[in-house]
Amino acid sequence: MSSERNYLAIATQSKKAANILKTVSNKKRCELLYKIHDALKQNASLIEEANQKDLKESISNNLSSALIKRLDLFKNNKFDIMLQGIEEVIALENPLGKVLMKRQLDENLTLYKKTVPIGSLLVIFESRPEVIANIVSLAIKSGNACILKGGKESINTFKIMAKLINDTLVNNFSEYGIPKESVQLIETRDDVNQLLTMDDYIDLVIPRGSNALVKRIKDMTKIPVLGHADGICSIYLDEHLKASDKFTKIVIDSKTNYPAGCNAVETLLINKKLENWDIFLKTLIDAKVTVHLMADVKKSFLFLNPDLASSQFVADVNEKEDFDKEFLSFDIAVKFVDDVKEAIDHINQHSSKHTDCILTEDEKTAKFFLKSIESSSVYWNCSTRFADGFRYGFGTEVGISTAKIHARGPVGLDGLVTYQYQIIGQGQIAGDYLGSGGEKQFNHKDLDFTEEENDD
Amino acid sequence: MSSERNYLAIATQSKKAANILKTVSNKKRCELLYKIHDALKQNASLIEEANQKDLKESISNNLSSALIKRLDLFKNNKFDIMLQGIEEVIALENPLGKVLMKRQLDENLTLYKKTVPIGSLLVIFESRPEVIANIVSLAIKSGNACILKGGKESINTFKIMAKLINDTLVNNFSEYGIPKESVQLIETRDDVNQLLTMDDYIDLVIPRGSNALVKRIKDMTKIPVLGHADGICSIYLDEHLKASDKFTKIVIDSKTNYPAGCNAVETLLINKKLENWDIFLKTLIDAKVTVHLMADVKKSFLFLNPDLASSQFVADVNEKEDFDKEFLSFDIAVKFVDDVKEAIDHINQHSSKHTDCILTEDEKTAKFFLKSIESSSVYWNCSTRFADGFRYGFGTEVGISTAKIHARGPVGLDGLVTYQYQIIGQGQIAGDYLGSGGEKQFNHKDLDFTEEENDD
Repeated sequence: MSSERNYLAIATQSKKAANILKTVSNKKRCELLYKIHDALKQNASLIEEANQKDLKESISNNLSSALIKRLDLFKNNKFDIMLQGIEEVIALENPLGKVLMKRQLDENLTLYKKTVPIGSLLVIFESRPEVIANIVSLAIKSGNACILKGGKESINTFKIMAKLINDTLVNNFSEYGIPKESVQLIETRDDVNQLLTMDDYIDLVIPRGSNALVKRIKDMTKIPVLGHADGICSIYLDEHLKASDKFTKIVIDSKTNYPAGCNAVETLLINKKLENWDIFLKTLIDAKVTVHLMADVKKSFLFLNPDLASSQFVADVNEKEDFDKEFLSFDIAVKFVDDVKEAIDHINQHSSKHTDCILTEDEKTAKFFLKSIESSSVYWNCSTRFADGFRYGFGTEVGISTAKIHARGPVGLDGLVTYQYQIIGQGQIAGDYLGSGGEKQFNHKDLDFTEEENDD
Repeated sequence: MSSERNYLAIATQSKKAANILKTVSNKKRCELLYKIHDALKQNASLIEEANQKDLKESISNNLSSALIKRLDLFKNNKFDIMLQGIEEVIALENPLGKVLMKRQLDENLTLYKKTVPIGSLLVIFESRPEVIANIVSLAIKSGNACILKGGKESINTFKIMAKLINDTLVNNFSEYGIPKESVQLIETRDDVNQLLTMDDYIDLVIPRGSNALVKRIKDMTKIPVLGHADGICSIYLDEHLKASDKFTKIVIDSKTNYPAGCNAVETLLINKKLENWDIFLKTLIDAKVTVHLMADVKKSFLFLNPDLASSQFVADVNEKEDFDKEFLSFDIAVKFVDDVKEAIDHINQHSSKHTDCILTEDEKTAKFFLKSIESSSVYWNCSTRFADGFRYGFGTEVGISTAKIHARGPVGLDGLVTYQYQIIGQGQIAGDYLGSGGEKQFNHKDLDFTEEENDD
């Protein structure tokens, strides 16, 4: 796969497959997914063997234990959860051909707005091998072709699973008519780089992995990217609250429940008028979180708590960097603000549009905050860690998007569909209507579409 | 406005204004729009004076009559239609704060999905001066800040209208709190080029003008672009139809009603099995359309119609170019296809994803075509010329988009909003739930939101 011609073939065949796959009924797409589910299940031992090989190589290559943990497909029921995930996707409502609008433009001239697949997806993920099953089931369920690139650490697991999926497509082609190019595999970073230039054929790129991966991809392509580079989440402590368990728990959970998560909090903004604000910092320190304090915060905090002057968990903030980065660790940057407006300004300027939160007992302030924050998710009185497709009830998650348009926040199946306008007429021409040379008028009568069934 | 610092100021102030504008109620945003409407109306003579100056300069610069016609704001009631357009936008439903989903994640932990503005828009248009009123009313109605760049031919008209709009913002700031930077003006192409690099602040670019303009902008920026470069629309003549008036009229209207329009047809695909197919070509020739024929089409056509062998309206197709370009004139490229599948393949490969149409009396073939075509609009038995926001009943049109995601096809106010997730809790933390260390389970109960009112 080294010549330019082959990349073009991958991209054009993906687009071609997408245009066939989208015409296959939901019933058939789901039946095929069951066959993929069964093929993976029946060949669990083959997959485990490949996975063991990946694990051994990773251990001998001294990869981090966190990475190795992600690689292991057969620990903590991960394999079964993966298979269950396919069934859950199958059980979801058919996302295609759903009528979103139905309008009579004139007698026997009807405009429909319907959901359709996006087309061809390029999905790049890192070490977790179960992602291939998630992505393939989501793609086929939503009628999109996909080109997949997995992490090199899980290459053996990935290859055998990909082969099983592809064999299933080939073996069932005569029955379902779903081309095998609906799921294509690429292996190297160079493959990705070449395909990222093919914006005429590939409609959406979904990188699932490190910030560095997402940033690199966003910088390299004109194709829309569904994902997030950073998760710089903030919590604003308003003056209208008591420094009680209810609120300190939220801050602790947001920071410590899973600090490597993109939805972990990185910045704490404290209203100067809040009473006993230092309790929040002491609770963080008790939880072994290093608080990076602005000079004025530090001065006030140590004045109130002189015994903590030499604590290893009290540090200075680097103002130029710390409000614009993910710590991904037991660290948090802390700043005073005068009021909710200053908090909003800080967040809209520094946040990565992921998830931000206000803690307050005052409804008016909360509603102003909710309305003012640009981020894809914004919360009032709960942990930032809830920003997650499973927690939102979306089933299998495609990713979390910090873009301003199309899919935002945690993205489920909805993020893989778009819409199309269809008009069904009986010979009408524009020249008969006012404004284009004729006398007829449009009536623009919205019709009830709640009873419309999806195309199938 | 030549230093880099000033561009950064324009972009950051626009973003800042957007974040204030979005918190202003619909009622106030509409009241301000009425004041803008009145300011333009009361100063019609000033605007006409400036418009006359632009017209005189354009005439002395030998600009084309088509361009001069577009420039003239006081012909054919254009000025009154423009003012009426502002009122129509005011009358539209509030697009913001609309609940799209409401889900109980757990008791007293509720997820909302709500419409929000996109943020800061960069709108670039060419000669038609009335566009400024359209764009400003749409932007303010939808809570988006906008940076505007008009065509240099209409600079005088544009400047006075922009001044009137800005004065209205300044004079009413104390009452509505809408910052004057909600509408900012830039004047040169260099200004545009600089702002196109500011993807951290500007959320959407809307070019309204020539293909060349849109192509140039798409090539220059990473900011999402709402628009279309080409409108390569096709009509497929299926075998299941009679070559009667009903169908020839559609082809003629699609080609000749307004050939310069992006929704005019450029390609005619004819099923080989269609009887009397040559009638379509003869009707086109009668309408003074030059038919550019593939060799086999030409041979068959002239065999059936030897008298047309020397017609000036019969030409060869340039296969390498003519199916991938907009003629924008009384020209059409013509090709035989074996069946609907070949027509679909041709269209999905060559069309610009604008609007394509099938003519047929066979419902099954029509539905297969509707389901297979990638374009943002796809029609059965009516003119491609219906692809237009006014005809779709969207009120003032933002543009027509050939993108695969976000806004597609004719775009009204909906294209200027996106959504945001909001969670309102009472102290819930992720660590209490299954999967993150606790025992609690989410209930994911969808709640009725049909009675929810928009935020205001």
